[in-house]
Amino acid sequence: MDGRVSEHAAVLVDWSARIEAGENVVCVASEGTHDLACAVARAVGERGANLVTLSGSAEIERAYLLGYSEYAGIDGEDDGGDFPESPAHELALYENADTVLLLGGGRNTAALADVPSATRQAASRARTGVREARMATDWVSTVHPTRALAQQAGASYEAYENFVYDAVLRDWEKLAEEMARVKEILDRGSEVRIEAEETDLTMAIESRQAVNSAASVAYDSHNLPSGEVFTAPADTEGEVLFDLPMTIRGQRVENARLVFEDGEMIDWDAAAGEEVLREVIETDAGARRLGELGIGMNRGITRLTDNILFDEKMARTIHLALGRAYNACLPDGKTGNDSAVHVDLITDMRGSSQLSVDGEVLQRNGYFEWEDEFEG
Amino acid sequence: MDGRVSEHAAVLVDWSARIEAGENVVCVASEGTHDLACAVARAVGERGANLVTLSGSAEIERAYLLGYSEYAGIDGEDDGGDFPESPAHELALYENADTVLLLGGGRNTAALADVPSATRQAASRARTGVREARMATDWVSTVHPTRALAQQAGASYEAYENFVYDAVLRDWEKLAEEMARVKEILDRGSEVRIEAEETDLTMAIESRQAVNSAASVAYDSHNLPSGEVFTAPADTEGEVLFDLPMTIRGQRVENARLVFEDGEMIDWDAAAGEEVLREVIETDAGARRLGELGIGMNRGITRLTDNILFDEKMARTIHLALGRAYNACLPDGKTGNDSAVHVDLITDMRGSSQLSVDGEVLQRNGYFEWEDEFEG
Repeated sequence: MDGRVSEHAAVLVDWSARIEAGENVVCVASEGTHDLACAVARAVGERGANLVTLSGSAEIERAYLLGYSEYAGIDGEDDGGDFPESPAHELALYENADTVLLLGGGRNTAALADVPSATRQAASRARTGVREARMATDWVSTVHPTRALAQQAGASYEAYENFVYDAVLRDWEKLAEEMARVKEILDRGSEVRIEAEETDLTMAIESRQAVNSAASVAYDSHNLPSGEVFTAPADTEGEVLFDLPMTIRGQRVENARLVFEDGEMIDWDAAAGEEVLREVIETDAGARRLGELGIGMNRGITRLTDNILFDEKMARTIHLALGRAYNACLPDGKTGNDSAVHVDLITDMRGSSQLSVDGEVLQRNGYFEWEDEFEG
Repeated sequence: MDGRVSEHAAVLVDWSARIEAGENVVCVASEGTHDLACAVARAVGERGANLVTLSGSAEIERAYLLGYSEYAGIDGEDDGGDFPESPAHELALYENADTVLLLGGGRNTAALADVPSATRQAASRARTGVREARMATDWVSTVHPTRALAQQAGASYEAYENFVYDAVLRDWEKLAEEMARVKEILDRGSEVRIEAEETDLTMAIESRQAVNSAASVAYDSHNLPSGEVFTAPADTEGEVLFDLPMTIRGQRVENARLVFEDGEMIDWDAAAGEEVLREVIETDAGARRLGELGIGMNRGITRLTDNILFDEKMARTIHLALGRAYNACLPDGKTGNDSAVHVDLITDMRGSSQLSVDGEVLQRNGYFEWEDEFEG
């Protein structure tokens, strides 16, 4: 077995999930993740914790959803039907768990393609109780490199393995410290300005709290890899070009350009994917406002792989999300921009660019002011 | 997917486990059983029941056991060490389950070979609570044909698939009726006599209850396939040759010959495997007495595959077990032969043979008196 699989398991168990002796761990292993599931089992055992491993097979899920649809006469085209509420045995499992590890990495990213999306959503809604019980644990989600994911990324398997391990096997402690520095600057700042190609945008961040997303439950960050600092902006003014392509709901979006006035988007266009963007924007009023400003800081991620969990963490990029803001970024008891959607779009800062807080340059051409490459 | 996989799932869910709408089902799927696990998920969904699928990977189990051994400083050579008691989350899962389906069929039957057996036993003892919770459900164990099991059986994969499906896809209702007939005869009988090559054995069965092992929880029979009627004999007299080979604790046993007087074995030998037989026999006093007489009645099983779950069900064979008797065969409140072991040995009845109850011939040359082939 590739030695990096064990290193990955160690980062997951120690840095991300902070598993300790005597804890009850649930590991949910997708079809293609058996090697990582073995390495995780070894590491969980070595820490003296207890383990139950669940199958996270998308094909088993598909079979169950199709079977139940047949039982309940759900055709799924118009509405998703009624699925059973979170079953008691599954609920009891999660309610008695301290940690849940989700190992993504199937053998076919289209495994659920012939389950109507209304059916998937209905089944998911019915399992809210299970999801909430899971979210109440120290849960962490990660990705094992599989051929299916390599294919989605347009990469060879070997290149994709290297990509994933470069992103996962970081010096997380050091990165968390650097991200803490960015967080501090954002926390005490009032206004952020982003300047880049066809981009000049200002956002208010006064009284907002940035999140140091350091891939560890200790930072309330539940994805491995992570590596971004994000906050919830307000009163956006100006225009922004998202020059890195994204797939949204299966559609390619390229060079989306948005114009904001008084916090609201007043104009937009895109070189590709206007249809899906329109769908997003017309969801509700909150979908025309920004919910997130994120600064990618994972230097192990140097290319796009059409997977938002990686793409938005790429160093020397920033991303903005239309829609819902995270409560963690708001003062206690306050809520931010509300919407049914949260759609990220990414801007490349590797060209001529500048990110400043209250007039002080924090990053130029994608390099922070404390980096050697920074040109003052 | 081979259509027989779905048929197997249907037999498992409907005939064996009797799963109904709203029930909570746990399916434990070994590494090589993904196709069957999908078919089971479909069938469980179609019946309107709830499903949690667990990984039953032997490699994950091995990794955990080795990891925990390292944590606890268990070297496993002399004693197995202390493993954690049944963890609360796993216990809660099973305590809230109505049915547990165990899908056997790994990718390597030696996957646990480098975990000391003392360690495996200690870990298993520590999980008594989980096991008891599982046994309190309508549990059923079955086998999916894998290349590893084909290899163990000395069969090609295709031949082994045919073998498993011939054994599993029976007309169980009809077989259960025929076995009920055998059970009735044994229940009202007082003495069984077995005559075959180098065999003439009598056993008392007065006041004993035979079990109709029809591969269904409705018959308190928890293995699919099954297909045997068994009881707990006493006062064995005479001699018996077990001419079908068996593997006991990894050792081949051939042509074991036992001689009984007043219920106790007074002499024995074997053409191969005397060492392991001696180990069994010397376990305790109960190991020198018979705990079970079983009559194989699954006509789909026509060859040995070195797997006792199949071998002992083969039609036209009988098996006797040294050691522990099943309480189900005894009158309420009574217990039968007691021992730490229960080791089955098989005799071929396909040659010149006779099985009679109170002097009436029930089976001759392996054919029951109601079969066309029976020679009166």
